[in-house]
Amino acid sequence: MAYSIAQEFFAHKRVLVAGGLGFIGSHLTRRLVQCGAHVTVVDNLARDCGGRLENIADVRHRLVLNLSDMSNAQTLSYLVRDQAVVFSVAGQTSHINSMRQPIHDLEINCGAQLSLLECIRQHNSQAKLVHASTRQIYGRPQYLPVDENHPLAPTDINGIHKLAAENYYSLYGRLYGLHSVVLRLTNTYGPNMNVGPGQGFTSVFIDQALRGETIQVFGDGTQQRDFNYVGDVVDAMLLCAATTFEGHHVYNLGHDERFSLIEFLETLHAHVPLKYELIPFPHDRRGIDIGDYYADYAALRGFCGWQPHISLNEGLGRTIRSYARRDFLPGTAFESVA
Amino acid sequence: MAYSIAQEFFAHKRVLVAGGLGFIGSHLTRRLVQCGAHVTVVDNLARDCGGRLENIADVRHRLVLNLSDMSNAQTLSYLVRDQAVVFSVAGQTSHINSMRQPIHDLEINCGAQLSLLECIRQHNSQAKLVHASTRQIYGRPQYLPVDENHPLAPTDINGIHKLAAENYYSLYGRLYGLHSVVLRLTNTYGPNMNVGPGQGFTSVFIDQALRGETIQVFGDGTQQRDFNYVGDVVDAMLLCAATTFEGHHVYNLGHDERFSLIEFLETLHAHVPLKYELIPFPHDRRGIDIGDYYADYAALRGFCGWQPHISLNEGLGRTIRSYARRDFLPGTAFESVA
Repeated sequence: MAYSIAQEFFAHKRVLVAGGLGFIGSHLTRRLVQCGAHVTVVDNLARDCGGRLENIADVRHRLVLNLSDMSNAQTLSYLVRDQAVVFSVAGQTSHINSMRQPIHDLEINCGAQLSLLECIRQHNSQAKLVHASTRQIYGRPQYLPVDENHPLAPTDINGIHKLAAENYYSLYGRLYGLHSVVLRLTNTYGPNMNVGPGQGFTSVFIDQALRGETIQVFGDGTQQRDFNYVGDVVDAMLLCAATTFEGHHVYNLGHDERFSLIEFLETLHAHVPLKYELIPFPHDRRGIDIGDYYADYAALRGFCGWQPHISLNEGLGRTIRSYARRDFLPGTAFESVA
Repeated sequence: MAYSIAQEFFAHKRVLVAGGLGFIGSHLTRRLVQCGAHVTVVDNLARDCGGRLENIADVRHRLVLNLSDMSNAQTLSYLVRDQAVVFSVAGQTSHINSMRQPIHDLEINCGAQLSLLECIRQHNSQAKLVHASTRQIYGRPQYLPVDENHPLAPTDINGIHKLAAENYYSLYGRLYGLHSVVLRLTNTYGPNMNVGPGQGFTSVFIDQALRGETIQVFGDGTQQRDFNYVGDVVDAMLLCAATTFEGHHVYNLGHDERFSLIEFLETLHAHVPLKYELIPFPHDRRGIDIGDYYADYAALRGFCGWQPHISLNEGLGRTIRSYARRDFLPGTAFESVA
């Protein structure tokens, strides 16, 4: 099947993971190591972005770790050379933090991506690139499910900058012939989620449930969403890179299951005791909320054969068990195999 | 008429011009001083952006000049206070330079604008804002004339960053209630144009004609464009600020006259001897060329009564005469009244 092809593809391949100490990045890094790839991780441990050395402690001796900032072109131009694949999973993903610290978001989500593309253009233009984007660039959906032709109208600073970054990839594909797949991720969850301040509701809900705190749901809790377990997201990235392609491609991730926030909590409740209350949207959240969202991922399936394999119930079970196996709360350690 | 209303509006008004030493900024600054406004200019004299102290030498003693970078929030938060109007005409406008130095373009066209909006949000949220954007965010037109509903698909780094900046203004209007008019400028020309490296074809053609050099026209010269004399652009900015409005607005500038590049040169030829040749598009220009472009500016006329008054023939005559009155080439001095 497709997944064994991906495994074979990466054996002995040189790959760079930008942001490899983060939530998704560390799962991706571990899988690449397990595939036998020669992995280099570059990460600057940027504030609130989820990067932690502990996330890859179990495979630390099987990869090259380089702590540095992607805006340092001298360093990066060395790191990108001779890499068959560059995964760009570095980013600031918090919507509310992007509003509170917009320049920080600009530097990470635009400056670092632009710097990376410039280095690749100059020093390794034949590399395959896989870039993690976000459904946030669509803004409030005009129709559902959202496909890749949906208008782009971001409702927060994070979405504005992630859109600019996508435009960089498109431009560098058209002008310079760079080969890239941009994946628009939806809510991604799993072990080692970033539970720092201002993260998305899945992180916050799981964190509060594990701490025994009352979960606060903004609005009436009927907002529909789709969810991807981090292992499925890693599958998508590996499959895209293992697929033969040229030029620039953009695809949604998504899931056939859809849940309201209340239904999400009911599913979570099967794995951990929890209590919740409905409260009005805080002022600073209402304006950037996007309402219902779920994606059409058929184009990605057509491109590389990907589809999600983990149900929300299964994925939340794995996530909660990963924390139950240790005596501390999320955000402080890692699961060795996702 | 509408223009005398604008004159009255600005008498004794406190206004800030961000980028007031540049081409358009200096014309705007001079007009504001002539209206009796209390003008503060902030400019960092950024490389290749056209800012020159000589551009405002004739009115230098009638305004406050502050040389500083808009990314310095401490400085800027003082400068924006108690301003009735903030004009944002700071920017890097060269398309080809944006491709050669993309991080520089990011810092100026995104970082500085975001910093400005943050300061205004925090320290002067009732100010009226007028921001100079560009037709470049439309990319290659899908229909003509281009109106404000045209899809946004920038074809170069400059367009990507100017689109992000527009998105900032829209977002800050929706979330924080800031009042702004964004004007999408087309080819703007006139005395004191920025004739530095990599500027637009109007600058290059006029500069080459005055130097007696053979003008090189990329392609077959049949690309259609519209042109605004800088005095008309200043009129638009003044009228928008003098109009009673709330929230966020976006309008095209434009002109009823349209010219191919060859016709532009024929019009220029009436005022200065010139010779030209057609050459193939250089590789780095072809990819970012947008083909034919001209705008529908009816929405702006409806908003504030603006329309352009200067024909291309009249405007080019004024431009050439402004250089003929002195013994040096463009880019080194100023015309006292546009």
